[in-house]
Amino acid sequence: MSNYFIGIDLGGTNIKAGVVSEKGKLIAKASVATGSTPSQIVQQMIQVAHQAAKDGNVGMHDIEAVGIASPGPLSTTEGIVLRSANLPDWHNVPLRDLVSQSLHRPAFLENDAKSAAYGEFTAGVGADENITNFILLTLGTGVGGGIIYHGRLIRGVSDSAAEIGHSIIEPNGDVCGCGQRGCLELYASASRTGRYAQHLLDTTPSRASSLRVLVAAGTRIGAREVAEHAQMGDELANEVWDRACRYLALACVNAARWLDPQMLALAGGMAGAGDFLLDRVKRHFINLNWKMSETQMQIVLATLGNDAGIIGAAALARDAAHQR
Amino acid sequence: MSNYFIGIDLGGTNIKAGVVSEKGKLIAKASVATGSTPSQIVQQMIQVAHQAAKDGNVGMHDIEAVGIASPGPLSTTEGIVLRSANLPDWHNVPLRDLVSQSLHRPAFLENDAKSAAYGEFTAGVGADENITNFILLTLGTGVGGGIIYHGRLIRGVSDSAAEIGHSIIEPNGDVCGCGQRGCLELYASASRTGRYAQHLLDTTPSRASSLRVLVAAGTRIGAREVAEHAQMGDELANEVWDRACRYLALACVNAARWLDPQMLALAGGMAGAGDFLLDRVKRHFINLNWKMSETQMQIVLATLGNDAGIIGAAALARDAAHQR
Repeated sequence: MSNYFIGIDLGGTNIKAGVVSEKGKLIAKASVATGSTPSQIVQQMIQVAHQAAKDGNVGMHDIEAVGIASPGPLSTTEGIVLRSANLPDWHNVPLRDLVSQSLHRPAFLENDAKSAAYGEFTAGVGADENITNFILLTLGTGVGGGIIYHGRLIRGVSDSAAEIGHSIIEPNGDVCGCGQRGCLELYASASRTGRYAQHLLDTTPSRASSLRVLVAAGTRIGAREVAEHAQMGDELANEVWDRACRYLALACVNAARWLDPQMLALAGGMAGAGDFLLDRVKRHFINLNWKMSETQMQIVLATLGNDAGIIGAAALARDAAHQR
Repeated sequence: MSNYFIGIDLGGTNIKAGVVSEKGKLIAKASVATGSTPSQIVQQMIQVAHQAAKDGNVGMHDIEAVGIASPGPLSTTEGIVLRSANLPDWHNVPLRDLVSQSLHRPAFLENDAKSAAYGEFTAGVGADENITNFILLTLGTGVGGGIIYHGRLIRGVSDSAAEIGHSIIEPNGDVCGCGQRGCLELYASASRTGRYAQHLLDTTPSRASSLRVLVAAGTRIGAREVAEHAQMGDELANEVWDRACRYLALACVNAARWLDPQMLALAGGMAGAGDFLLDRVKRHFINLNWKMSETQMQIVLATLGNDAGIIGAAALARDAAHQR
């Protein structure tokens, strides 16, 4: 019996693969810049998987199964990626079977944020065995989510559960690319945090801000710049950061109301700010949360960084392979 | 082996009990107006349980277990009701054991809305075996919720999951008794729908409305009056009804985003309006919902009416007794 698994994380910027042990330890990993066509991307996925196995001194015959983390929408039961926001010609791609056939190994497909959630749950910040109910929010270009209940990933009936970034938090708010108004990710993603700072700079030209030096130098304002300048005392940057943290705290309150988990972890670009994100979100949470009863949910930072998707996809492949 | 179960539903107005078969059929029921002290209420619960058994020609020795549906907050594992919104001297009442000792039968305690959800799921509108993921919203004095995932009730780690009425839908909205701002139940409960109509009547005295005749006659405006007058063409009543339905549709969108169930059912006072509620909620849902992918969730009316709590509590007692 082989004891290793490969997790492949298909991202908009990079494709990463890692060899992961039965217990969730990342043995070796490899990555490549994401190509443009589906067939090129599938080839790259195979290539980084082989590279990771080679780097880890693990033969492909020692790989029991392969997990693939991909942006959605997708079907886990059919193993098909239905569409891609970044790749216009990506329609109903049978990614699971393409990878499985090329690597001659059973493969499993899961949404990227759900994979990351399962990674953090099984091998990251939620790995404590007392944690059975867990939520991850990934704060990047959008806001992704993953929910674990009683140790199992909540997928929903059409693999659309835990789309927390598209929960509506401002009923009369901005229009989202998904067609709704007021989605959480319009207010709390890393990219939108940067954009909102740029918006304030543009619409209030008389307002002083240390961010203007960056703009003048041609730097694009992202969540990182906002956090840095807010920490250095810039008032405009602080206003932007605080607003994002307040919306995240609202999402945390709603997470506690809908699912009452033991832990909610924050990951992705925004989480790069560390305690400057966490402390602010927790402060707003205390103010916004009900006073009816003590809320047990801990709010924490994720710990696996960019490896969460690889590790989670491998763990899902392990569990799926062992269940069969 | 006995084959019957008793479900007791402790409500603010009435205490109801029913004898329920293994398959969820309600054999007989009894009810009494809810008393004021905890000890009186426990006595009443015992009394209506005996009455229901008597009316159903079922001896107490044929009752395998008793389920109790109670308003929260409560602890299902300890069988204790922590507090009651309606009963000031109700603190940490060990309701499960008090009932169990009096009836000499194993007893189980569950939140009232979760019990109703389980009732609708096992014996009501969600009883189809293809429905595995189900949500109930009870629209009464407040808004209660129950979530079933893969056939099991989601309780959360402190029995506070599915508090959908206290999910935040208007971040800068009204202050709720729970201490939060903008809770769903401030906008979509039966009682708040009536109150909002009264508010519009009071604050826009020059505006015509057929509801004014009722007010002049001393009738208190409730959700029922709002629905009736909206259906008769009253513009003010229609505005109030439409607003509540829109907020319910927002909750439906968020239900689909968080949990992606096959079915969401509406129950309680508001649901008394039948299709006039359902059609309006569905119309708003289509407008408010994302366009990313087809949402499979059906929105329906609950079918068990006031018996859902009894039947659900009995079903939970059955499942708990059989699991031990």
